[in-house]
Amino acid sequence: MASLAEISRICGVSLGATSKALSGKPGVSDATRQRILSVAAQTNYRPNRLVHAIQRGRSMTVGLTCSDFHSDFGGRIVEGMLKVLYEASYDPIVINWDLCVHEGEKVLRTFAERRVDGLLMFPPADQPSQDYLQELRNLRRPIVVVDQVFAGCECYDFVGSQDFEGAVAATEHLLALGHRRLANIFFRQTSTGRARLEGYQHAMAQAGVAIHGKWLCEIGQYESNEAYVRTRELLASPEPPSAILCFNDWVALDVIAAATDAGLSVPRDLSVVGFADLQMSAHIRPRLTTVAQDPREIGRRAAARLVSLLEDREQAPAVGKIGEAAAVAQAAAPVSERVPVKLEVRDSTAAPRGVGK
Amino acid sequence: MASLAEISRICGVSLGATSKALSGKPGVSDATRQRILSVAAQTNYRPNRLVHAIQRGRSMTVGLTCSDFHSDFGGRIVEGMLKVLYEASYDPIVINWDLCVHEGEKVLRTFAERRVDGLLMFPPADQPSQDYLQELRNLRRPIVVVDQVFAGCECYDFVGSQDFEGAVAATEHLLALGHRRLANIFFRQTSTGRARLEGYQHAMAQAGVAIHGKWLCEIGQYESNEAYVRTRELLASPEPPSAILCFNDWVALDVIAAATDAGLSVPRDLSVVGFADLQMSAHIRPRLTTVAQDPREIGRRAAARLVSLLEDREQAPAVGKIGEAAAVAQAAAPVSERVPVKLEVRDSTAAPRGVGK
Repeated sequence: MASLAEISRICGVSLGATSKALSGKPGVSDATRQRILSVAAQTNYRPNRLVHAIQRGRSMTVGLTCSDFHSDFGGRIVEGMLKVLYEASYDPIVINWDLCVHEGEKVLRTFAERRVDGLLMFPPADQPSQDYLQELRNLRRPIVVVDQVFAGCECYDFVGSQDFEGAVAATEHLLALGHRRLANIFFRQTSTGRARLEGYQHAMAQAGVAIHGKWLCEIGQYESNEAYVRTRELLASPEPPSAILCFNDWVALDVIAAATDAGLSVPRDLSVVGFADLQMSAHIRPRLTTVAQDPREIGRRAAARLVSLLEDREQAPAVGKIGEAAAVAQAAAPVSERVPVKLEVRDSTAAPRGVGK
Repeated sequence: MASLAEISRICGVSLGATSKALSGKPGVSDATRQRILSVAAQTNYRPNRLVHAIQRGRSMTVGLTCSDFHSDFGGRIVEGMLKVLYEASYDPIVINWDLCVHEGEKVLRTFAERRVDGLLMFPPADQPSQDYLQELRNLRRPIVVVDQVFAGCECYDFVGSQDFEGAVAATEHLLALGHRRLANIFFRQTSTGRARLEGYQHAMAQAGVAIHGKWLCEIGQYESNEAYVRTRELLASPEPPSAILCFNDWVALDVIAAATDAGLSVPRDLSVVGFADLQMSAHIRPRLTTVAQDPREIGRRAAARLVSLLEDREQAPAVGKIGEAAAVAQAAAPVSERVPVKLEVRDSTAAPRGVGK
């Protein structure tokens, strides 16, 4: 790939004339322009978007922090985002969220220094520091938060799932099968975990079914063996549950493992419901009943929302500083979207022993 | 975040003086410099890396095409890359590989126009077009290919796994348990699939064990139900295998499902070995025996290799065009690294019925 300087040297014309010819501006003769364009094509010249970014005041890049590269859930969110951003001619600069927690302000400064036009944040359970939140405000660029919310980001647009509604549907499914001893393994550190716990409590209250304290199992550390251990304890207790509603499919996998290792059969002895519908969930045996989320659609909508905020900003009347106009535009009406979920009834749930057929 | 122009306006000094003060260059009085720096701090001014990139001729960005956001394998490769790139002060611009196949040249032009310093390519099975390969050569920037190789990229550095050695170890494990009717479900469209098939054939030949034609099952389409269907056929045939070596853990999951649905028990009636060691593999029942890859290390080494090529380029004597020097440096000795794998023996393999205890 040749540079502007090389083409200028090959053609024996000034840098200014070369630049004019390549960007279609007047000021060079047709013959010279043709010669320059021909050399540019032969030497695979590519226009410099860094220069365009400075000239236009828009880098056409978006910062993306992602917390979850561990499963197809996070991956599909990213896929959905990449597609929409690409179609809108934005490129994402991606940084792992872990860095945002440990070196948060530094990471956000990187984004600021790269002059990203906006930010897509896909955070995990960790609550960012006050410094991080302050740096986020300093950015003064459109921001869309994805999947999880945290304290201090209520002023930004949000796209996630119907976590509450999904947990209600899953609980009602188990109640309809005849389950009354219905445990819940939940993860209160995330906003999704809290909403799912509330959905379970709501559906149980609506049905007038009491929740025994021991059937409320909180796991404190994600990706630990807590779900497995707590399930073994639950199943060995005097009044074991006949069904367990799980924070997500990973927890459900460990619950099924614990039941299997305890010599029980799912769903004959225990019904299990997950949340997410990860790729594995229809392939394991028993196939998992779960609340299916739509991560690609979450990613698509989040990116589309950000692109729309960026276009609004571009079309807004120039009221001084661009950053301020955007900040005002967004603060006016933070939008919260929740992509529908769908209960996928498969083979890990059935009527409890002694009920039904 | 204030711009250079705003700070200049607030301080009542020229743009040039503001720029000098902020970049630590001489030509402004100490008093003016202090005033400018103070306003910059108050207004959260951030230096513009786009300007630095143009001035230095290095954007400090890396293009990253990724094919696999569907599992923790691809995700962990990306995680490993992000960590090393961040530490070396490079930021990745990420694009989904699917786009590279369907709009390949256009995507590579995007990278060229963004002036990425180098490229990390994590390709899937699809063979890129001649146009794509040509555009790749036109880039004249260091490139590292990850996990999969394809025809036309032999001139680039590569970091992947010991696919051949892993398949040999898995086959020898099954042979040592006493298996002789040893099938292989393979995926020939990828370089990893071909290497794993060769490892199996090599180990079988070394042991003097014949491979029946019907025990060689090729799957043509990834993420289809072929592995499940072919396993059901194999298990229903007159001389079913006592063990199946699988292309990867996803295939192994479907093989276990097929055996379970056929009323067989793993490993009592059928031993199954996967490849990858995905997160789910130690959590399912039976826990999967598999060849564990180290995707984070693959990502780390690939990014480290690219960073080292970029540093070499920076330190190389200026022999005219930077692009050419880099192209020469890399073409001289394409390096191929294969990160070690390790057989994880868990519960999905055992001696065949009638052998051993």
